[in-house]
Amino acid sequence: MKSYRGYFIDLDGTMYKGKEKIEGAAEFVESLKRKQLPFLFLTNNSSKTPEQIAEKLNHLGVQALKEEVFTSSLATATFISEQKLKAKVYVIGEEGLREAITQEGHQIVDENADFVVIGIDHEITYEKLAKACLNVRNGAEFLSTNSDIAIPTERGMMPGNGAITSVISVSTGVSPLFIGKPEAVIMKQALHLMGCDEQSALLVGDNYHTDILAGIQAGMDTLMVETGVSSFTDIEEIEKQPTYKYKDLFEVIEDMEKAT
Amino acid sequence: MKSYRGYFIDLDGTMYKGKEKIEGAAEFVESLKRKQLPFLFLTNNSSKTPEQIAEKLNHLGVQALKEEVFTSSLATATFISEQKLKAKVYVIGEEGLREAITQEGHQIVDENADFVVIGIDHEITYEKLAKACLNVRNGAEFLSTNSDIAIPTERGMMPGNGAITSVISVSTGVSPLFIGKPEAVIMKQALHLMGCDEQSALLVGDNYHTDILAGIQAGMDTLMVETGVSSFTDIEEIEKQPTYKYKDLFEVIEDMEKAT
Repeated sequence: MKSYRGYFIDLDGTMYKGKEKIEGAAEFVESLKRKQLPFLFLTNNSSKTPEQIAEKLNHLGVQALKEEVFTSSLATATFISEQKLKAKVYVIGEEGLREAITQEGHQIVDENADFVVIGIDHEITYEKLAKACLNVRNGAEFLSTNSDIAIPTERGMMPGNGAITSVISVSTGVSPLFIGKPEAVIMKQALHLMGCDEQSALLVGDNYHTDILAGIQAGMDTLMVETGVSSFTDIEEIEKQPTYKYKDLFEVIEDMEKAT
Repeated sequence: MKSYRGYFIDLDGTMYKGKEKIEGAAEFVESLKRKQLPFLFLTNNSSKTPEQIAEKLNHLGVQALKEEVFTSSLATATFISEQKLKAKVYVIGEEGLREAITQEGHQIVDENADFVVIGIDHEITYEKLAKACLNVRNGAEFLSTNSDIAIPTERGMMPGNGAITSVISVSTGVSPLFIGKPEAVIMKQALHLMGCDEQSALLVGDNYHTDILAGIQAGMDTLMVETGVSSFTDIEEIEKQPTYKYKDLFEVIEDMEKAT
């Protein structure tokens, strides 16, 4: 396995699974640090702030700083700034999204919004969805942090942000621009943040349809592990395969050690 | 205008608009009663019980009994009984739907449901949607009272039940059977209830895409008034036109008087 100038590492299914750590995650990150290989954690999770995510990683034994975490919420807030500074934004979402929007200098409003943004919100209400629809019908640009339709939990597959987003798109007839993996917006920003081009970058993740596809579509090499959502059997029939397939991150570390 | 053996009359946009009566509504119903022409109020509104709707009509000066009101909730409950007696049903919806389900002898459950039913619910929560998804993934048959994507209100177009339903269909990949207008299920039941065949029935309504289409698809004659959602200009380009087009119900009464 060759060495890359930038490693983009997925979180859920790659570093941890819900509240449990994934074996090999801490060792993989340590290995990158020892080799001084630059990396960035890249997550579609819009609900948590980078601080909260770094804290969770540290708690699970993975050394991480908040600056090393890039969320779909940060990508959404940055995307808005690229269109308009100090924008008026109607937000459905949790702390991670609301903080990202306000820290970029935007104002969260109920009416006359320039943008409507939706991220996962476990406190979703009819009134929140109604306000989003009214603002979109009134001309606000419609963004959604990520298109994941289902979230694996111990109870089963729960509705993801992509499913909740459809209330607004179906009701108004306006499709959102999705920001998170596998879309281009988050990938371009992540490459820019790392200061590396796509040919020198590797995307490491477990979910073919979000992580691996994000890397492939961005022109990166990709590495899929089987510790999360997708299995190698699941993707057998798919034409565009990941560059590397490893059962888990221990296998990755082993291969990286051989190469050096 | 010829005389029919059964008149199916829409409510919102035809008899009243939100909380306000529509001129000619009371007179039209009186005229049918005077001529002893059988009629049934037919509504996609799943949230109210027939009693509540009859009360509202009476309050607005339109004489109505609860037996003269047929809702998408009653049609849904009846449809379930046709498949299974004493079914276990997971319900998202308001009083009209919950009462219709239990009065048919079905049991409202949280888990291991035979059917998942969704109707408009202004108290919608993430947890309610999650339970619906889990039950559908677990094999429950998925029904939705109606496919309306937006509801006109004084604040603007609010999300309708068809839009909320999409959370479950997008997340699980399972499409619901819609029961209300313009679908066949409610129309078949309404004809059965009136004991008349489609050739002898007239559908009276304001919304082309729910009311008029329901009638056309069921093989009935249709009468469109311009007092609600659709205008005659809106439907100019559409091939399948209503049998009759009248500005309001006063015009209808006038034409009915001429005919007799």
